[in-house]
Amino acid sequence: MAEAKITRRSEDYSRWYTDVIAAAELADYAPVKGAMIIRPNGYAIWEKMQAALDAMFKETGHQNAYFPLLIPESFLKKEAEHVEGFAPEVAVVTHAGGSKLEEPLVIRPTSETIIWNSFRNWIQSYRDLPLLINQWCNVVRWEMRTRLFLRTSEFLWQEGHTAHATYEDAEEECVRMLGVYRRFSEEYIALPVIEGRKTDNEKFAGAHHTYSIEAMMGDGKALQAGTSHHLGQNFAKAFDVTFQTDKGTRDHVYATSWGLTTRMIGAMIMAHGDDNGIVIPPKLAATQVAVIPIARKPEEREKVMQAVNGFTAEFKKAGIGFKVDDREQHSPGWKFNEWEKRGVPLRIEVGPKDLEKNQVMLARRDNREKIAVSQEGLVPKVLDVLDTIQKSLYKAALEFREKHTYRIDDYSKFPEILDGEGGFIWSHWCGSGECEARVKEELKATIRNIPQDSPAEEGKCIKCGGKSERRVIFARAY
Amino acid sequence: MAEAKITRRSEDYSRWYTDVIAAAELADYAPVKGAMIIRPNGYAIWEKMQAALDAMFKETGHQNAYFPLLIPESFLKKEAEHVEGFAPEVAVVTHAGGSKLEEPLVIRPTSETIIWNSFRNWIQSYRDLPLLINQWCNVVRWEMRTRLFLRTSEFLWQEGHTAHATYEDAEEECVRMLGVYRRFSEEYIALPVIEGRKTDNEKFAGAHHTYSIEAMMGDGKALQAGTSHHLGQNFAKAFDVTFQTDKGTRDHVYATSWGLTTRMIGAMIMAHGDDNGIVIPPKLAATQVAVIPIARKPEEREKVMQAVNGFTAEFKKAGIGFKVDDREQHSPGWKFNEWEKRGVPLRIEVGPKDLEKNQVMLARRDNREKIAVSQEGLVPKVLDVLDTIQKSLYKAALEFREKHTYRIDDYSKFPEILDGEGGFIWSHWCGSGECEARVKEELKATIRNIPQDSPAEEGKCIKCGGKSERRVIFARAY
Repeated sequence: MAEAKITRRSEDYSRWYTDVIAAAELADYAPVKGAMIIRPNGYAIWEKMQAALDAMFKETGHQNAYFPLLIPESFLKKEAEHVEGFAPEVAVVTHAGGSKLEEPLVIRPTSETIIWNSFRNWIQSYRDLPLLINQWCNVVRWEMRTRLFLRTSEFLWQEGHTAHATYEDAEEECVRMLGVYRRFSEEYIALPVIEGRKTDNEKFAGAHHTYSIEAMMGDGKALQAGTSHHLGQNFAKAFDVTFQTDKGTRDHVYATSWGLTTRMIGAMIMAHGDDNGIVIPPKLAATQVAVIPIARKPEEREKVMQAVNGFTAEFKKAGIGFKVDDREQHSPGWKFNEWEKRGVPLRIEVGPKDLEKNQVMLARRDNREKIAVSQEGLVPKVLDVLDTIQKSLYKAALEFREKHTYRIDDYSKFPEILDGEGGFIWSHWCGSGECEARVKEELKATIRNIPQDSPAEEGKCIKCGGKSERRVIFARAY
Repeated sequence: MAEAKITRRSEDYSRWYTDVIAAAELADYAPVKGAMIIRPNGYAIWEKMQAALDAMFKETGHQNAYFPLLIPESFLKKEAEHVEGFAPEVAVVTHAGGSKLEEPLVIRPTSETIIWNSFRNWIQSYRDLPLLINQWCNVVRWEMRTRLFLRTSEFLWQEGHTAHATYEDAEEECVRMLGVYRRFSEEYIALPVIEGRKTDNEKFAGAHHTYSIEAMMGDGKALQAGTSHHLGQNFAKAFDVTFQTDKGTRDHVYATSWGLTTRMIGAMIMAHGDDNGIVIPPKLAATQVAVIPIARKPEEREKVMQAVNGFTAEFKKAGIGFKVDDREQHSPGWKFNEWEKRGVPLRIEVGPKDLEKNQVMLARRDNREKIAVSQEGLVPKVLDVLDTIQKSLYKAALEFREKHTYRIDDYSKFPEILDGEGGFIWSHWCGSGECEARVKEELKATIRNIPQDSPAEEGKCIKCGGKSERRVIFARAY
């Protein structure tokens, strides 16, 4: 195991990000440009995310299915905006089984087209609606500038695809799933997010409109953490999907799609990590507790291990994820550092002196606080501390965001904020794509979204002075 | 929902297979030749399989990871037998992001090469061994003749890839994972299988040797249901993966790989299905119980639903998967047929007359037996019946296999069996690839494997009369 030095955040945030990923052995770059190898420590986080989200999808009536990786090139072209958005970044299969294909196949960059081609056969009548489908899979989008988890040429995600009888039903679903993403972010990733609608410039290629959740990272930049699209009847018309209404007429179906990716692991890293490495929220940690037995002499070792085996048996029953690090070739100090880098939320140290006092030491990863607790009733104490850590991480992230959130009515103040500690700038905007584009060009800041809970407030566009009805969020983003 | 007629097995087994898949809405062919859309009913079975296997992999110390979909073409060429085996069936990406790629990329047909390229960086010393990795993913193999689940150009699978310090350690792992597959087949799919070693002609391209589990389908044909390969040092040498031994010397690492695919759904269908449709073993059924309330009048309906809501609340607590089919547009008879086609293992019927007697009717899918049971203590009774169904399915499959298993010492008797009801033929074989190839050519039967528990027994090769030390299994196969 190579000793990875971690660059300090204040020194170089971007290098810090790369360093903590290496130190925690979360992922590697692959030999194919822009592709990523998700190592076991990284994949374990994704598995926890999947389990939590999947349960939430099923609770809201969705079923999983699987559609093909390869899509005929002609399918992509059936929806005009869609092909314009995705054609430049697809990977194309031209040969297979030793021969040139009659029609090239694209590797799915997203699956609307192949799925709506099936929905045509699955939907006949209003009784078949809503159709609520989700898929867990890999997609490929050929990106020029890539970063582990945040932007890779292949990534893992889930994509929901639903069909509805009315515009309103689709809108309800679209907002419902955005809410699922928000709850997931808050409750599992301990990450506060802002729900809102994307501007037309930033909506999904082929959508009627798009919603997003936006989170603030440790460097004050925004990260779009999930999107939910109202597709109107665009794909139903492109793939001729109609249904018999309850009045006996025929209409095109209304659609939504929504996705959340392995990018969320990047969000977790940048929201909670510190100069010692990543910090995994307890609900996403396969290993929630690292147990470090401390003993030099064999007879000490035996007693310590007896105690450790005793309480870890209880952990197992209680479903607490733990690892006992009894490697003899490493010192306790080395191990403390090791498990910190890996972001394990709680460390338990137990040595001969602890045994004398019938106690163990709990060391929290988030604030590095150490407390001695009795070995009696250890399980509820550990569960309680894990719960406290989960909540503290959320609270700290929320406080950080509040601290870096500004209400600005003077565009000349933007650079100071954006070039300084970064943050979210709530400002007025007239709704014109032109003003939005100019801000992006001048300051590399975009409108993250128009928050759902941005109150009606008369104001003047930060850029042109035109009439505005509510504030939107400007920020630089990943 | 189209009324799908099911061809009888005795009439045309192949059409029966297609029909029951359509009737249960398990899968569709995709617009890309040979690709498959796994519909929610089919995917739900795969999810149950995944959950069971994944738990077994983790119990045996394996961790999940994720490696890229796209592999540089040159990687495939590093292991001579491997490229020979897989090059003819790969799909090749030649263009991406609007440009021609410098080096074509193949879509993984299996991931040994990309994984061993990483293992070089992950393994330095004997302390890093064994390295026990598994991956759940999609792979593409361009097949000419395809059948849903059994052979599709893209399929889902898990692929285990492990690294060990010695040949013996790798052998132990290889056999251990074959055992996991056997237990999984028996306990979850209710499918008896025979563990054994493949002949050299039939081993994996790049393996030192291969083990398989072989199952008998309802038409007497064999199906290879999972394979486990001892790769020797072949891939370690091809990718230069060495480690420092505990003696301070350097050696190449020994490897295994093992895989099980969505083909297992095809095995389940062909092992248990009957002329009324598929039969899902209770442990693989997301919907284990279909509840059909029977009531014509509104006041009856209310009472029946009250009872149904009562006991299904108990089902939910007990973790029994159920669906209540209260659709008013369909008759009870239509619903019985519908849930039979879908293979739901147990149906509960409850109507006003049942309520009078404080009972419900349980209808088993496997043997179509109907029994009246009291509503009191329904949960343990349902669990008990589900358990009985699981065991009965296994027993029936085992009896079927025994009935269609022959010890034959006269090659002239092969055609009668193979062209008749099919089956497994235990016969002597000298070990020569030539004899094996001739049987294949003459009768389209292959040696499925050399069973692990085939006792030492002197005999003469069925083909050439040469010396043989044990019997092997000949059969026609999927």
